[in-house]
Amino acid sequence: MTQDPSSFVLKRRHLLGIEGLSPQEITGLLDLAEEFVTLNRQIEKKRTSLRGRTQINLFFEASTRTQSSFELAGKRLGADVMNMSVAQSSIKKGETLIDTALTLNAMHPDILVMRHAASGAVELLSKKVDCSVVNAGDGTHEHPTQALLDALTIRRNKGRIERLTVAICGDILHSRVARSNIILLNQMQARVRAIGPSTLLPAAAERLGVEVFRDMKEGLKDVDIVMMLRLQRERMNGSFVPSVQEYFHYYGLDEAKLRYAKPDALVMHPGPMNRGVEISTAVADGAQSLIREQVEMGVAVRMAVLEALARNLPHA
Amino acid sequence: MTQDPSSFVLKRRHLLGIEGLSPQEITGLLDLAEEFVTLNRQIEKKRTSLRGRTQINLFFEASTRTQSSFELAGKRLGADVMNMSVAQSSIKKGETLIDTALTLNAMHPDILVMRHAASGAVELLSKKVDCSVVNAGDGTHEHPTQALLDALTIRRNKGRIERLTVAICGDILHSRVARSNIILLNQMQARVRAIGPSTLLPAAAERLGVEVFRDMKEGLKDVDIVMMLRLQRERMNGSFVPSVQEYFHYYGLDEAKLRYAKPDALVMHPGPMNRGVEISTAVADGAQSLIREQVEMGVAVRMAVLEALARNLPHA
Amino acid sequence: MTQDPSSFVLKRRHLLGIEGLSPQEITGLLDLAEEFVTLNRQIEKKRTSLRGRTQINLFFEASTRTQSSFELAGKRLGADVMNMSVAQSSIKKGETLIDTALTLNAMHPDILVMRHAASGAVELLSKKVDCSVVNAGDGTHEHPTQALLDALTIRRNKGRIERLTVAICGDILHSRVARSNIILLNQMQARVRAIGPSTLLPAAAERLGVEVFRDMKEGLKDVDIVMMLRLQRERMNGSFVPSVQEYFHYYGLDEAKLRYAKPDALVMHPGPMNRGVEISTAVADGAQSLIREQVEMGVAVRMAVLEALARNLPHA
Repeated sequence: MTQDPSSFVLKRRHLLGIEGLSPQEITGLLDLAEEFVTLNRQIEKKRTSLRGRTQINLFFEASTRTQSSFELAGKRLGADVMNMSVAQSSIKKGETLIDTALTLNAMHPDILVMRHAASGAVELLSKKVDCSVVNAGDGTHEHPTQALLDALTIRRNKGRIERLTVAICGDILHSRVARSNIILLNQMQARVRAIGPSTLLPAAAERLGVEVFRDMKEGLKDVDIVMMLRLQRERMNGSFVPSVQEYFHYYGLDEAKLRYAKPDALVMHPGPMNRGVEISTAVADGAQSLIREQVEMGVAVRMAVLEALARNLPHA
Repeated sequence: MTQDPSSFVLKRRHLLGIEGLSPQEITGLLDLAEEFVTLNRQIEKKRTSLRGRTQINLFFEASTRTQSSFELAGKRLGADVMNMSVAQSSIKKGETLIDTALTLNAMHPDILVMRHAASGAVELLSKKVDCSVVNAGDGTHEHPTQALLDALTIRRNKGRIERLTVAICGDILHSRVARSNIILLNQMQARVRAIGPSTLLPAAAERLGVEVFRDMKEGLKDVDIVMMLRLQRERMNGSFVPSVQEYFHYYGLDEAKLRYAKPDALVMHPGPMNRGVEISTAVADGAQSLIREQVEMGVAVRMAVLEALARNLPHA
Repeated sequence: MTQDPSSFVLKRRHLLGIEGLSPQEITGLLDLAEEFVTLNRQIEKKRTSLRGRTQINLFFEASTRTQSSFELAGKRLGADVMNMSVAQSSIKKGETLIDTALTLNAMHPDILVMRHAASGAVELLSKKVDCSVVNAGDGTHEHPTQALLDALTIRRNKGRIERLTVAICGDILHSRVARSNIILLNQMQARVRAIGPSTLLPAAAERLGVEVFRDMKEGLKDVDIVMMLRLQRERMNGSFVPSVQEYFHYYGLDEAKLRYAKPDALVMHPGPMNRGVEISTAVADGAQSLIREQVEMGVAVRMAVLEALARNLPHA
């Protein structure tokens, strides 16, 4: 750690993606998150650093997991948190995204956490509002807090990120999680591999700065981290959708395939898992799995993001 | 201002409508709301005046906008706020409105904010409970906090309400917003016009104390405020429903029609807008539009109503 | 009262059912709940005993009434409360109950309040998590806070529970409310009768420690408390479903049938009521009804359970 986490400020108004974050900013957020890991394991989990602030969670796509994580993060920092699931309300009445955003903006929130099915929707909205915007996932573009929590989980278990070999496996094409992780891992000097069937890899995956493999045996050889992705069947419009059995046979992580990786390789998954599709139950619940720790890191990382952005807001 | 807003008390148990409010009560609420406009623009937006109080938002009709506004208002005053969207739960199990109300009442809320599709449902319920009830919209009857926020927006921009000419345009027949505004504006000595097709005007609109016009050109002549209404197609059972194109041609507010009004006329809309139906995008987003400010005033006015009613509750 | 309620600790990690609770534990909870009855009737209803604690309400079955009661209970004790209605989110994405539980557990809640349609699901989950678990209803198994609130309501109105005769009437077979009440009332030395048609009584009802009647006239003779149950038509898979008219004729509680009980008998119902099915409106709203008071006791009893469990958690 190169600086005191308790004085770290993210000198940006928004967190729209990992793209553009410096290694120092990433490290600053991870160091601050470590403080919250400690806090969250205590009985009294409450801080007052966001007291009097308003956080709105604006989810155009439902997500129990991510929304809960942001909700707890904000509440533990003392913010007034308001959840809005927009699918079932104003959208039906024909209101546009921008109108919804400007309406919320007029209520003077300090932080808007937003998820939307369209890539770029969060950035578009961030230009229309006065508050800080945190991207909680936009289309197939970015999901920055997921990449940060993955990085924190890796750093805690391997002691570092740089020079590790990380294999991201599965549906890279539709995955904002993959995209944000690739950018972060490259920025932090890790080596990244992408493993998947051609139909689930971007046309020019190499340009993302990854080594591409179509075979798990080859791709997993000597890796430190195996990062599985959720098979996003709901987003596969027009792509070839493999049968579940076929997919698991070739790309599902079971104990046999995991043996190709380093003996001390660790397994990650952003959740929710399709057990028996992209990962076997034995691996998901096995000794090499970090999947539960990722969820714990999620709350801590979101607290760090909220607090680091809030420190950059004008003071009372 | 004739009194100190920080000591204003609404000497009523409920706010069921604008009908029956004196000019002094309306002015008292608007003056108190001004304090909250200032507070909401600060970083630390929290008050403790409703600490230990319980506010329940009981919405039988979904409304992201109004419910959020009441939720933020209550939270910023320090209340414990609980949202209940009743459509999807008890109603299905066959519980009656009165049973729902009495159940909530037994939980000792201090304030119940209620919206219902039936005119009079909120008043009926207010007679069954011990707490304060705020009408957040009942059928085609009243929506008092909307009229108050509109009045506050007008007063801030024109310096007064009395002697202004306000045209309310569109679907007057189905609009509780129109009804509450007409009552308030008359009470505050403004001149009110209603403009719309015969099918969307009440049978005896003049009895409401408005001048009736069927033509926008005539009706908008020399007005200070143009208040557009949402075309409530969901409430038009049996009425003639004009085509959207036709409606916009005759009654939609575009820049050409706005030129009939005074050069410094201001434009309002309660939202959510149907752009291209009752209002053009150029006007909605133009320099004469107060539409965003209305949303901001909404939170402030609801804080004023909650606090003014709470001051009338017995003290600890 | 045999001990000071303000120092009562429930020396258990979970409250999964009434089964296994000693009379001393039941009495301790009821005594503590009495304190919260008093608090809830005050203007300032807020305590800080759960400040910094996180309570998650995880409802796999929708329930406005029970969820609201737990939400208010937690908020009034100062906890950060997060509601999760799981039906519409992760379940759709194929996540298992255990994965949902472990995900939540990783967020470090202190208390998980859970309702599930399957008997035993709450106990299963309690073995997987580190926090305290409160059963808010699991299948046809138990609903312990309902039995506790019923006991508190009885004790306040009759001065005691022991030696009272309590008739539980209707759909005993599908009722977790009946089951928890029977266990509690037996434990507290009351005499319990079960009245209902053979099709709605468990095969060996007597083994539960109740006297079984198929006729209301006989069963209600000389009882102190008449506890009606909701006709759970949504759970009657395969059972004979009587017509509503028939059911009301034989088993619905009206004024005529109530006369078979003691003149000072009191009437209870866990809600929501099917008026005209299991109970007449005259009886539900009559002088002998305790139905509203049960709801009030519900918030107090849930506060007592949350606080008594929290006192047993490790301290900061």
